[in-house]
Amino acid sequence: MLIGSIDVNEFAVIDTIASALGDSATAPWIRVGIGDDAAVMRARDGFDQVASIDTLVADVHFPTNAPPELIGYRALMVSLSDLAAMAAAPRYALVALTLPEVGGATCQQWVQRLASGMAVAAQQTNTALCGGNLSRGPLAISVSVHGEVEAGQARLRSTAAAGERVYVSGPLGSAAACVRTNQLLPVTADALTAQQHAYYRPAARFDCRADILAATSAIDISDGLLQDLAHVLEASGCGAELHAYDIPLGPGAELADALAGGDDYQLLFSSARPPATGICIGKLTHQPGIRLDGKDIPADGYQHFSA
Amino acid sequence: MLIGSIDVNEFAVIDTIASALGDSATAPWIRVGIGDDAAVMRARDGFDQVASIDTLVADVHFPTNAPPELIGYRALMVSLSDLAAMAAAPRYALVALTLPEVGGATCQQWVQRLASGMAVAAQQTNTALCGGNLSRGPLAISVSVHGEVEAGQARLRSTAAAGERVYVSGPLGSAAACVRTNQLLPVTADALTAQQHAYYRPAARFDCRADILAATSAIDISDGLLQDLAHVLEASGCGAELHAYDIPLGPGAELADALAGGDDYQLLFSSARPPATGICIGKLTHQPGIRLDGKDIPADGYQHFSA
Repeated sequence: MLIGSIDVNEFAVIDTIASALGDSATAPWIRVGIGDDAAVMRARDGFDQVASIDTLVADVHFPTNAPPELIGYRALMVSLSDLAAMAAAPRYALVALTLPEVGGATCQQWVQRLASGMAVAAQQTNTALCGGNLSRGPLAISVSVHGEVEAGQARLRSTAAAGERVYVSGPLGSAAACVRTNQLLPVTADALTAQQHAYYRPAARFDCRADILAATSAIDISDGLLQDLAHVLEASGCGAELHAYDIPLGPGAELADALAGGDDYQLLFSSARPPATGICIGKLTHQPGIRLDGKDIPADGYQHFSA
Repeated sequence: MLIGSIDVNEFAVIDTIASALGDSATAPWIRVGIGDDAAVMRARDGFDQVASIDTLVADVHFPTNAPPELIGYRALMVSLSDLAAMAAAPRYALVALTLPEVGGATCQQWVQRLASGMAVAAQQTNTALCGGNLSRGPLAISVSVHGEVEAGQARLRSTAAAGERVYVSGPLGSAAACVRTNQLLPVTADALTAQQHAYYRPAARFDCRADILAATSAIDISDGLLQDLAHVLEASGCGAELHAYDIPLGPGAELADALAGGDDYQLLFSSARPPATGICIGKLTHQPGIRLDGKDIPADGYQHFSA
C-alpha cells in the first residue's frame, strides 16, 4: 500500500517518545528539538545547524520496482525538504541503506543506480553525501540531512499569527494524482508523465529560501495541505480560512489531491507581507480550525500509519 | 539469524556507491568522507563536527523479542561507538524508527520502553536525542549520531605505522559468547548474565577519549578484532603481530569469540607511547597481514551480509 489512511496514533506515539526521553531530548545548545520539521542546534559562528532524519520503506513510501535512480532522487529530496521548511541551507546528508541481500551484478547495478539518483539530487541542492551505512534487512532507505541557517532564523511551525496570509510555494496535488490514477508503475526514468514527475522528482524548495526566511512560520507539505496546515495552526494557536479557487492545482490534480496529498513536497508558510514567489491561498484567523470557502473542513491527509 | 557469515560483497557495494556518488560524496569543508567510522566536517570555532549513521534491523542486529529497553540502549550505544572511535565527543543523535503497526497499549508501551532505554544511553554519554522520524514498515531503528572534536584531531584508520603498538580498550568476546551459547533469549533487563550484559549493554568508550586522542589510529571493533584490525592495516599499509596470551578475554569468552566477535564494541587503536587505559595486544609491522603467535591468520569476522 502506497498511501496510508488516517490514524492519530502516530502523533500519540511521538508524544510518548518525547515524554519517555525527557531531558535526553534537549540540551542548552539545542534551539528546537522534537516537534518541528527538523532539530536546530546552535553553531559557532553566527549559524545554527539544522538536522532531520527520514526513513523511506519499500512499498510504503516508494514502489520497489520503480527505477532506482528515481527512488534515490526522491529519497534525498524528500528528506531535504524538511531543511527547506526551516529556511536552512543544506550542507550534508548521511544515508543508511537496508538491503535484503547483496550479491551479483543485479544488486550492484541497482545500488549504483540508486546512488546516482541521489547524486543528482545532491548536486542540485549543493548537499554532500558524506557518510552512510549498509545493513541486511527489508529494503529501506534512511536519510539524515544537515544544514545551517543564520543564528535564530530557522522558521518554525509555532510562530504564525492571526491576520497573516497563508502561502504555498507551488502547485499541489499532481503527486497524489499520480497515485490515484495508478501511474506509479510502470515508470521510465527519462519519460515521466507530469504526474510521475511530481511524485518521483519532487524538488526541495531551497529556491524559496528568501521568502521562507521572511515568513512568520513554515512547514513542508508531506502529510497533505490540510494536515500540515493543522500542525501549524495547533502549534501557533490560530485558525485559517482558505479559498478553493486560490489553491493552485498541478497537472492532473483535483482539489482533493491538493488538500490531502503530500507527495509534492511544496512548502506552506505564513507571512505578514507578500512574498516574491508564494501563492496566497487564504489567511490566518483567531477562530480555530480550518474553513474552506466558509465551511469547516477536517484536517484530513496522509499519515504514515493506517488503522 | 543474528550473526552473519563472511561476504566481501559489502565492501564492493560500498565502493560502488562511492564511485557512483563521485563529487557528491565530498565538499571542501569535509575532512573525512566515506571510508572511515564516521564523516568529519570542519566546524566553525576550532572544532570539527563528526557524524555517523547506523541501522539496526530486527532479528538481524537484535532479537525482536528482547526487552525494548535493551534494544534502545544498545541501538544508541552501538551507533555512538563510531564517534568514540574518531575521538569525538558526542553532541546529538537523530532516530528513525520503523514499526510494523502502531496502535494499542502494547505498541505504545513497547515504544516507550525503547525510548527509555535510549534515554539511559543518552544520559550516560551526554548525548541529546533531539530529533527523529516514525515510519510504517518492518521493525528497524536507524540512528544518526553527531559529535565534535578539536579541529584536525579526529582519529582515522589510515594513520597507523609499523613499529607502533596495538591496543584494545577492554576485554573482548563476551558478547559473541552470548550469541554462541544461546543466551540472547530469554533475557530480563534487570537480571543479565555477564555475557548478556556485554551484548545488550555495550558502552561507547568515550571514557578512553584521552587515549584515543593520543593514538595514531583508532577504529571500533564492530565486525570483529581481526576484521577491524585488517581495515586499519589496509588503510595504513602495514601488518600486525598479535599475541594470543595478551588478548583480554571477557567473561565466558573463548579466543575465537574475541578474534571474530564485534558486538562488545571495544576500541582498537595504535599508539607510539603507552596509553593510560588500553591493553597492548601486539605491534604493527612492515610485513603485511596479521600473524597470531607467529602464524598467519585470515581476517575473519562478522560482516553484515551472508553469502
